[in-house]
Amino acid sequence: MNASYRIDGMTCQGCARSVTKAIQAVSPTTEVAVDLEAGVVAITGPADGDQVKRAVEDAGFDFVGPA
Amino acid sequence: MNASYRIDGMTCQGCARSVTKAIQAVSPTTEVAVDLEAGVVAITGPADGDQVKRAVEDAGFDFVGPA
Repeated sequence: MNASYRIDGMTCQGCARSVTKAIQAVSPTTEVAVDLEAGVVAITGPADGDQVKRAVEDAGFDFVGPA
Repeated sequence: MNASYRIDGMTCQGCARSVTKAIQAVSPTTEVAVDLEAGVVAITGPADGDQVKRAVEDAGFDFVGPA
């Protein structure tokens, strides 16, 4: 599954890494590409939207929705 | 329980919030104070060291140990 989500609150590479790890903690085989400038995370793999939303929010970022 | 831990990789307030939320996701009543400059997180509440370590690592930061 490929999907892109708008995520607010990522301001540096540490934030980008944090979002990536949080998603991979719930879905280890999912690939995550963060566009920090755009505030968009592109997902390739089995993680579904609800898993991504929960992981992102638990990591302290704002899950806005599909990008 | 009060404890302080050295955590590497936090570079901005987004990172600090991420670490705080990650710890509170596993232990909601734990208070977390981040000293970004020092790379130290002070914990007040029931979260134990193993929980903190796992939450911090799942969030993409490096848990170094007691500060």
